[in-house]
Amino acid sequence: MPGPVRLAAQLVRSFGQFSLLTNVWTGVLFTLALFVSSWQGGVFGLLGAVVATATAYAVGVDRYIIDMGTQGFCGCLTGIALYVFLGPHPSTYLLTIGGAVVCVLAFAALTALVAPWRLPVLTAPFCVVVGAVLAAAPAFTRVWPGGSTAALPIAAAPGTAYTWTDLWHGFFANISQVGLSAHWYVGAIMLVGLFVGGIRYGLAAVAGSAVAVLLSWALGAPPAAVAAGVYGYNAVLVAVAMGGLFLARTVPNALYTLVAVAVTTVLTAALNAYFAPFGGRTLSWPFVITTWLFLAAAASFPRIRRIA
Amino acid sequence: MPGPVRLAAQLVRSFGQFSLLTNVWTGVLFTLALFVSSWQGGVFGLLGAVVATATAYAVGVDRYIIDMGTQGFCGCLTGIALYVFLGPHPSTYLLTIGGAVVCVLAFAALTALVAPWRLPVLTAPFCVVVGAVLAAAPAFTRVWPGGSTAALPIAAAPGTAYTWTDLWHGFFANISQVGLSAHWYVGAIMLVGLFVGGIRYGLAAVAGSAVAVLLSWALGAPPAAVAAGVYGYNAVLVAVAMGGLFLARTVPNALYTLVAVAVTTVLTAALNAYFAPFGGRTLSWPFVITTWLFLAAAASFPRIRRIA
Amino acid sequence: MPGPVRLAAQLVRSFGQFSLLTNVWTGVLFTLALFVSSWQGGVFGLLGAVVATATAYAVGVDRYIIDMGTQGFCGCLTGIALYVFLGPHPSTYLLTIGGAVVCVLAFAALTALVAPWRLPVLTAPFCVVVGAVLAAAPAFTRVWPGGSTAALPIAAAPGTAYTWTDLWHGFFANISQVGLSAHWYVGAIMLVGLFVGGIRYGLAAVAGSAVAVLLSWALGAPPAAVAAGVYGYNAVLVAVAMGGLFLARTVPNALYTLVAVAVTTVLTAALNAYFAPFGGRTLSWPFVITTWLFLAAAASFPRIRRIA
Repeated sequence: MPGPVRLAAQLVRSFGQFSLLTNVWTGVLFTLALFVSSWQGGVFGLLGAVVATATAYAVGVDRYIIDMGTQGFCGCLTGIALYVFLGPHPSTYLLTIGGAVVCVLAFAALTALVAPWRLPVLTAPFCVVVGAVLAAAPAFTRVWPGGSTAALPIAAAPGTAYTWTDLWHGFFANISQVGLSAHWYVGAIMLVGLFVGGIRYGLAAVAGSAVAVLLSWALGAPPAAVAAGVYGYNAVLVAVAMGGLFLARTVPNALYTLVAVAVTTVLTAALNAYFAPFGGRTLSWPFVITTWLFLAAAASFPRIRRIA
Repeated sequence: MPGPVRLAAQLVRSFGQFSLLTNVWTGVLFTLALFVSSWQGGVFGLLGAVVATATAYAVGVDRYIIDMGTQGFCGCLTGIALYVFLGPHPSTYLLTIGGAVVCVLAFAALTALVAPWRLPVLTAPFCVVVGAVLAAAPAFTRVWPGGSTAALPIAAAPGTAYTWTDLWHGFFANISQVGLSAHWYVGAIMLVGLFVGGIRYGLAAVAGSAVAVLLSWALGAPPAAVAAGVYGYNAVLVAVAMGGLFLARTVPNALYTLVAVAVTTVLTAALNAYFAPFGGRTLSWPFVITTWLFLAAAASFPRIRRIA
Repeated sequence: MPGPVRLAAQLVRSFGQFSLLTNVWTGVLFTLALFVSSWQGGVFGLLGAVVATATAYAVGVDRYIIDMGTQGFCGCLTGIALYVFLGPHPSTYLLTIGGAVVCVLAFAALTALVAPWRLPVLTAPFCVVVGAVLAAAPAFTRVWPGGSTAALPIAAAPGTAYTWTDLWHGFFANISQVGLSAHWYVGAIMLVGLFVGGIRYGLAAVAGSAVAVLLSWALGAPPAAVAAGVYGYNAVLVAVAMGGLFLARTVPNALYTLVAVAVTTVLTAALNAYFAPFGGRTLSWPFVITTWLFLAAAASFPRIRRIA
């Protein structure tokens, strides 16, 4: 049983792990940001983190690993996501508890599945668990009393003009959407958290978010979606993970990360279409898939050097 | 060329392998049950088993493996499934023959693909072959003369009350659906077959089916679907496979299996939505995916002990 | 920097690699055929090949590998496919350049991912890159100004009669569709290219295409689709790859390839349905998946002998 300080550190790190950082102050700022975004969402996140952390203790995960927040963050994200997509119903609490337990198992399973390629699981356990729950929800009247959200993907309507507000809101919302929030000020607090974790993480997030906004604008994505961060949170995650964590800080690696940021932005649109007809969700799959592909490819390129 | 007794044992074991058991009397009871459900379906199953077994001989599979029914059961399931979904047309006979041949190849291919993680193929070859044939069928007028079954998933309508009949029919139909039959008495005969195979398999099936019925009811699944076994056959398969075959009989393993049973029930609803828009079928994918994830995760947890 | 002759050989081999052949005269004939089909499409293909080849040099791929055209062909196919599906807009040029860069990375990534099973990547990098771009396109007004192409799959209408023209057009179009062209004379030129590459490649293509036409007709596929080569280009690719390249020339291997040709024809219809609701494309996924499954299975069968 961890002491209160140790437990508190584990829980705030579960929030900080949304962008794979272990710095406890990053965690504090991310926790603060997401409670500012919605105190109810924060409570759901905390519930998920507590249950996932307890599950990790119960199944005998190494305590040092639990301390890093790697066991709690998928449960934490699951709680927030279920609150956002299903609303604060009693059944959502129960699903958060169940989902957080399964997150720990999914983390172990996916770790084993990607082990042959020395790939990290990233946020894949969260994507698997929440994706399954949300696709299943309309079949169960006590979980989702309304109609199914499944629909054929529709094309963006041309002719809508961008405003400056769209662009700078999008820049910050790309960061806040890492915690499933669309508020620009939440993104601003989280960006401070990233800089506190390390200058390079903050710079990577700034670059990733800016490239995503510019590319979405250049390709003609709908302004409202860009302003809400829809096309950029995966870019932020890719930039922080590849630019900050997994690759050495060299010019070729920075260019490589930039290509990955562009790829994940387009992939976000592709996966939005993919998940629409059956009511699944894109979540951070574009980040997961892009990072897996680019890390798997890296071993073939002598100029790209992986450090983690 | 096998003698008639050996061949008969291979064929009835192909039926018994629906729930991964090799006991020949389990096979006899499963065969009986599925002929009781529909003699035409039984004939299609037998045809699939004969063709798959002959294919296995032709490609030089070890005879001991063929004796266990592992080569025949996917062809057998394919025959029954094509009869159920396409009807007893002449083209269905030809597709059963072709599908049974491909099942043996798919079994070998998938065995190789999951080998790095020491995972069993379970019913995946059947799911792959039948899923592809059914998704393809509407493109071919001689295979499927009607309209496509593809449709967006719809939400369950609230307000329908459960009856006791729904619950106990569902309990047995969860078992009969392992052989794609919705008749409760077919499930009852198959349950006897499971107990004949071993007390623990019968108990696992009882527990898995009961949990699936209760969970579906608690979540608010449509009563008619629960009564038809739609939400529970994967739970029965997971319970028998993990609770009876792959994990040692300990309390932590039983709890672990229970979580897997709950997960596969929710995953069934998610995959029903996933397959709807393109006319694929859920089949026993939820069982396959859940068991793969939980067995892959098991290696990380010292308290979970795998025995097969 | 390669000399002009070496570069020209690399580029025409990028076209010849559409069916995995490295013979430079096959490449010349394929290049000719695709410029005959559409000079604009040829230009897009050339642009993709140039960019992909340059990218391969930039990231330090071994020059001998680049000489074989293996680095250029996915970019080349990507250029042609984006021209065919998106039209010759300025944005299509930019997407071809970006897509060709990503093809080289995807080639390396997928090579690593299938390495544990000793499988070749085949055309998978092309399928991944173009599939993602086309599914994403409707979200971006500057890429795709029209409505989304996503739609539920529809069943083939019965009652349409085949003509001889449908059959022989289909026979050649099955070959031309390897380069995304539906003109029978393009297929005829490419067939000459295959025979120039080696008698066995030409014979394999003839057999694969004929079986696909006959099977599609027997199953009742729509005549117009068969005449356009929709159901047969994967069969041609499977026949050339398995019958010509990867398996030794023996009778069991020929039968094995024949089964694979039939499987990929049915799988084409299944994947057409799979990709329809979200606006993805089948491309040569049926070839990739079928060849992977049959090569992975081959190791289990003593009578099937792999040579590459």
